[in-house]
Amino acid sequence: MTEDERAIRDLVETWMTASAAGDLETVLGLMADDVVFMVPGQEPFGKEAFAAASQSADRPNIDGKSDIKELRVLGDWAFMRTHLKVTATPTDGGKEVRRSGYTLTILRKQPHGQWVLARDANLLTVEA
Amino acid sequence: MTEDERAIRDLVETWMTASAAGDLETVLGLMADDVVFMVPGQEPFGKEAFAAASQSADRPNIDGKSDIKELRVLGDWAFMRTHLKVTATPTDGGKEVRRSGYTLTILRKQPHGQWVLARDANLLTVEA
Repeated sequence: MTEDERAIRDLVETWMTASAAGDLETVLGLMADDVVFMVPGQEPFGKEAFAAASQSADRPNIDGKSDIKELRVLGDWAFMRTHLKVTATPTDGGKEVRRSGYTLTILRKQPHGQWVLARDANLLTVEA
Repeated sequence: MTEDERAIRDLVETWMTASAAGDLETVLGLMADDVVFMVPGQEPFGKEAFAAASQSADRPNIDGKSDIKELRVLGDWAFMRTHLKVTATPTDGGKEVRRSGYTLTILRKQPHGQWVLARDANLLTVEA
């Protein structure tokens, strides 16, 4: 495994851990300022909308597992296909919702060497 | 616009035209042999499964419009974000289904210079 591949795998692990801990600041630090998130049935959105959604009062607790299926580094860019399983547990005692599926992600190496998320297509669906 | 950008835009136009014409051979020629298609709620699939689905007897007529929102060439690779509107009309006279949404696509330049689809995440949903 190259240094870049290791750095990107570390990014994913840090993302999952920080999300589970509700550590929004760390998660925001792992994405490019011009990041674009894409999910079915919605317009693409960026960093500000991501932060706003993560700070909403009724935001559930998130616990996720990621499995990187493919990772290819292309110089200062990379793409990655990942399988995700995410459990969202409402803080008001509501029923947990499990979602799973794949993501296709573009990453970029910043001038100072840190890899960040640049584009993300999230294909997760709610499990029956 | 660079030559590569022009070639990729031409690829998209050829894809849409060939799809509408039911010209499967042309469409298959626009994708890498190891292409991976990703859609919500399904396992990723490749060229063979794409061809099989396109040859099924009850396949509807497909008419689509694409609008490239972002295209970035990274040497022999590229990524592209596109908005698509697709109308599927059953050949048995059933009701047409309209789907729309975004795609995130990775493209690759082959050794002989032709650009092909390599990875595609399709986030389209059925319009109400």
